[in-house]
Amino acid sequence: MFIVPEGEIAGLIGEDAAYQAVEGVFAAMAREEAYNFPVVREAIGYADALYGFKSGFDRAGLVLGLKSGGYWPGNAEKGLTNHQSTVVLFDPDTGRPQALVGGNLLTALRTAAASAVSINHLARKDAKVLGMIGAGHQSAFQMRAAVRQRSFEKVVGWNLHPEMLVRLEETATELGLPFEAVKLDHLGAEADVIVSITSSFAPILMADQVRPGTHIACMGTDTKGKQEVEAALLAGATVFTDELAQSVSIGEAQHAVAEGLIAEGDITEIGRVIIGAHPGRRSEDEVTLFDGTGVGLQDLAAAAAALRLAQEKGVALEVEV
Amino acid sequence: MFIVPEGEIAGLIGEDAAYQAVEGVFAAMAREEAYNFPVVREAIGYADALYGFKSGFDRAGLVLGLKSGGYWPGNAEKGLTNHQSTVVLFDPDTGRPQALVGGNLLTALRTAAASAVSINHLARKDAKVLGMIGAGHQSAFQMRAAVRQRSFEKVVGWNLHPEMLVRLEETATELGLPFEAVKLDHLGAEADVIVSITSSFAPILMADQVRPGTHIACMGTDTKGKQEVEAALLAGATVFTDELAQSVSIGEAQHAVAEGLIAEGDITEIGRVIIGAHPGRRSEDEVTLFDGTGVGLQDLAAAAAALRLAQEKGVALEVEV
Repeated sequence: MFIVPEGEIAGLIGEDAAYQAVEGVFAAMAREEAYNFPVVREAIGYADALYGFKSGFDRAGLVLGLKSGGYWPGNAEKGLTNHQSTVVLFDPDTGRPQALVGGNLLTALRTAAASAVSINHLARKDAKVLGMIGAGHQSAFQMRAAVRQRSFEKVVGWNLHPEMLVRLEETATELGLPFEAVKLDHLGAEADVIVSITSSFAPILMADQVRPGTHIACMGTDTKGKQEVEAALLAGATVFTDELAQSVSIGEAQHAVAEGLIAEGDITEIGRVIIGAHPGRRSEDEVTLFDGTGVGLQDLAAAAAALRLAQEKGVALEVEV
Repeated sequence: MFIVPEGEIAGLIGEDAAYQAVEGVFAAMAREEAYNFPVVREAIGYADALYGFKSGFDRAGLVLGLKSGGYWPGNAEKGLTNHQSTVVLFDPDTGRPQALVGGNLLTALRTAAASAVSINHLARKDAKVLGMIGAGHQSAFQMRAAVRQRSFEKVVGWNLHPEMLVRLEETATELGLPFEAVKLDHLGAEADVIVSITSSFAPILMADQVRPGTHIACMGTDTKGKQEVEAALLAGATVFTDELAQSVSIGEAQHAVAEGLIAEGDITEIGRVIIGAHPGRRSEDEVTLFDGTGVGLQDLAAAAAALRLAQEKGVALEVEV
């Protein structure tokens, strides 16, 4: 089997390869050639850690395996990333281990790629202003992936703790775009595309703050109870997601569905747009909303891409198992 | 992290170390210091494979991880084992990968160790005759582990396909014991301890074939629908298991519980016997039955033991992740 260490990932896979991997596996899901297995997620009662697995099988790409990992809040003071992820791939023809791939950067890239896929397929072609809600570690990845999808001319951003907005400003500068820190009213009034990436448990963005024609990617809600936008916003939008089952249970749509504002049948998996089974945006005035919950197949697809690139570059370590 | 290849396992861990690991983690489960996470098991719709994960956390032993693997029926003709297992351990203090350990032999050893634990804690001290039902690959492991627990003087065996009984005979000879192929009536009449290890979907051993005082370890039933012994046998026995939740859903007890012959509350997790919270066998005439379903913590405990031994012997390959 092959080992692709975490430290090699940055030299192997960037926004474009991650985009291709994630778009491809969303399409495979829509063609029913790929599916996610049930998620295991446990508060282990030690080190305040949340630990678990996301896994699945892509029969088209022949990618089988799991991402194991979780959240260790004490890691930062040890000089480690709090979120720790490792992908293990298995040969679907024999069940033998194929590769172990460092999953930390891959997780950031595949999460960013999902919102980029939604922007490519759902945002207005003439989108010029990107609005960012949230300025944590992941926000920079989301911005880098997002700006590749449209000819953005400006980034506006908001964060609960304004002192963190420097991350958004620095990232925008790196991408050659002007940045403005704004109030949420202003953000909604100016942005054509909004990416929210927070750990919020109460709505931040309200329905009346959003203009017609906006595309919103809600990327932070991955747990029961979390919420980034007002449920009414989903009622007035055309709602898309990565995986319907997660969207209505742990995703942003959990609240609108629970409140009866939308039904499960109102939500479309974005893979259907990618393969042409759903038209996506139907008008310039439509609000589209992507509920990105994060599925194991994204991790596996990104890891399989990294493995191929590592083998091509000769940086995958082969070990006997 | 460390790699412990499949090929090294045989030189590292045998029946005794596997016994210690499995008995220890059953005890940790009873003390509520260790628990299994939900099992993922999927028919992946490719290569006729059944694939999944068993996982858990032992807070006492600080062992966290998963066994990934499954059953690939086409492997044999490729010269590979049909059952393929790989254990991945993670550092519970940081979530970083700690070791990848070949899991094929470990699975055989930990399954055999579970029935051995049940024999040690539940069989009559004066047991002399070991009865084996089933003569597949795993039966040799079960016999080798079983004979270490009592002063057995003879092995009697039965298998649906008599031509396979040569495996039991050869294993008994290796262990210095006489072997006799018998009918089931004879097996039940003579054996003090019976280990069944089949893939049966209908009862093989009937209640009236079993003498008072017998200990039976049912080790083959790990799926809804499988069954090795008549449900009435459980009604007349004191029933123990590795994990109650699995016992009543996918274990041998599923049938007796479904038929209302026993209740969930009649079944005792064997860890409680190990830690002294349940007396185990109460009389020489009691029939005791162990429903061994196989839990992820057994795999993790056995793999952690193999890792320690591999590090001591210097055969664990350290790789950068």
